[in-house]
Amino acid sequence: MESQDNNKVSGSVDGIGGSKGGVGMSTKVSICDLILRVLALLLTLAAAIVLGVDKQTKVVPFQFTPTLPLVNVEAHAKWHYLSAFVYSMVANIIACSYGAISSLILLGTLYRKTGLVQIITVFDLVMVGLLFSANGAALAIGLMGYKGNSHVQWNKVCNVFDKFCDQAAISIVLSLVGSLVFMALVAVAVLTFHKRFASRN
Amino acid sequence: MESQDNNKVSGSVDGIGGSKGGVGMSTKVSICDLILRVLALLLTLAAAIVLGVDKQTKVVPFQFTPTLPLVNVEAHAKWHYLSAFVYSMVANIIACSYGAISSLILLGTLYRKTGLVQIITVFDLVMVGLLFSANGAALAIGLMGYKGNSHVQWNKVCNVFDKFCDQAAISIVLSLVGSLVFMALVAVAVLTFHKRFASRN
Repeated sequence: MESQDNNKVSGSVDGIGGSKGGVGMSTKVSICDLILRVLALLLTLAAAIVLGVDKQTKVVPFQFTPTLPLVNVEAHAKWHYLSAFVYSMVANIIACSYGAISSLILLGTLYRKTGLVQIITVFDLVMVGLLFSANGAALAIGLMGYKGNSHVQWNKVCNVFDKFCDQAAISIVLSLVGSLVFMALVAVAVLTFHKRFASRN
Repeated sequence: MESQDNNKVSGSVDGIGGSKGGVGMSTKVSICDLILRVLALLLTLAAAIVLGVDKQTKVVPFQFTPTLPLVNVEAHAKWHYLSAFVYSMVANIIACSYGAISSLILLGTLYRKTGLVQIITVFDLVMVGLLFSANGAALAIGLMGYKGNSHVQWNKVCNVFDKFCDQAAISIVLSLVGSLVFMALVAVAVLTFHKRFASRN
């Protein structure tokens, strides 16, 4: 009975990682969580920076009216010309900021306050939705820029703005990997809650 | 000691909802889960159907070369002309099928097999990523169709194919609500695991 009572005290002090094994598991999971979180932060930060500095200027032949001859004009490509890229930028900045804040919270508490675990996991889930929708939007517009579409008569632009398109593609890939890391964070949390619960039964 | 042993037996039989209160909570959560799952199934099914039957034919004036006069030609708009809409269709069909399969599994077991809970929740999470990316892609292309973009010289097409665009918008809204329901399923699972775990400590 005495040993049972000791376990109970230990459980109430340590919160989720109540038993000795539980504390070890909790710390291990927190470090794994922290590494993934910092990785997501860096990836979304890199995606935002790569997209933020993405611009290209080219001289292209242009015909103002069918009767006038072709003239060379300077054409600019900037990320904020396309609303899908603006959305991608905003989503990556939000995800990056959230990654920094949640990492600091995690460092401060190392999951001792159990109430934070569920709040952070739900926010991670929101980041998954936000980043995946932004990646879908940026990828759809990027692909349209690469291939064009004859049905709606939208011509491809990446044959002219090749550097701009390549840089946007790198940003999308970085953001996609970042969103997969946020997804992994939620999956790890779900599997951990379950494993901890099962080990208690 | 006897009552403790009884609790242990009850726990091993009922799995997650081990105690009497736990069984009640498990059943309640399963019904809530089932309702949300069927709702997600119906929403993604409706989104796929609305998009699948989306087509419009219009007679529009067209000039083949600058020297020739305008002639009326028949123009068609179909959902499979745009790859973002094809992706949205595929994503909604996958999510709808998964919603049906997981609902049947849930009806069969009512969460008695605890291993299924985590697998289903992780798959729900994958559906969140899939649907949100598809919604982002469809919304980006849809908005381009409504507004156009002067920087890349992509003209709006929704002033011609108004019915087609309106129907695509309805499909996107249905799919968006469906993806939010899948997100709610993951959030409910995370909060439930946590609440059950906390109630055990």
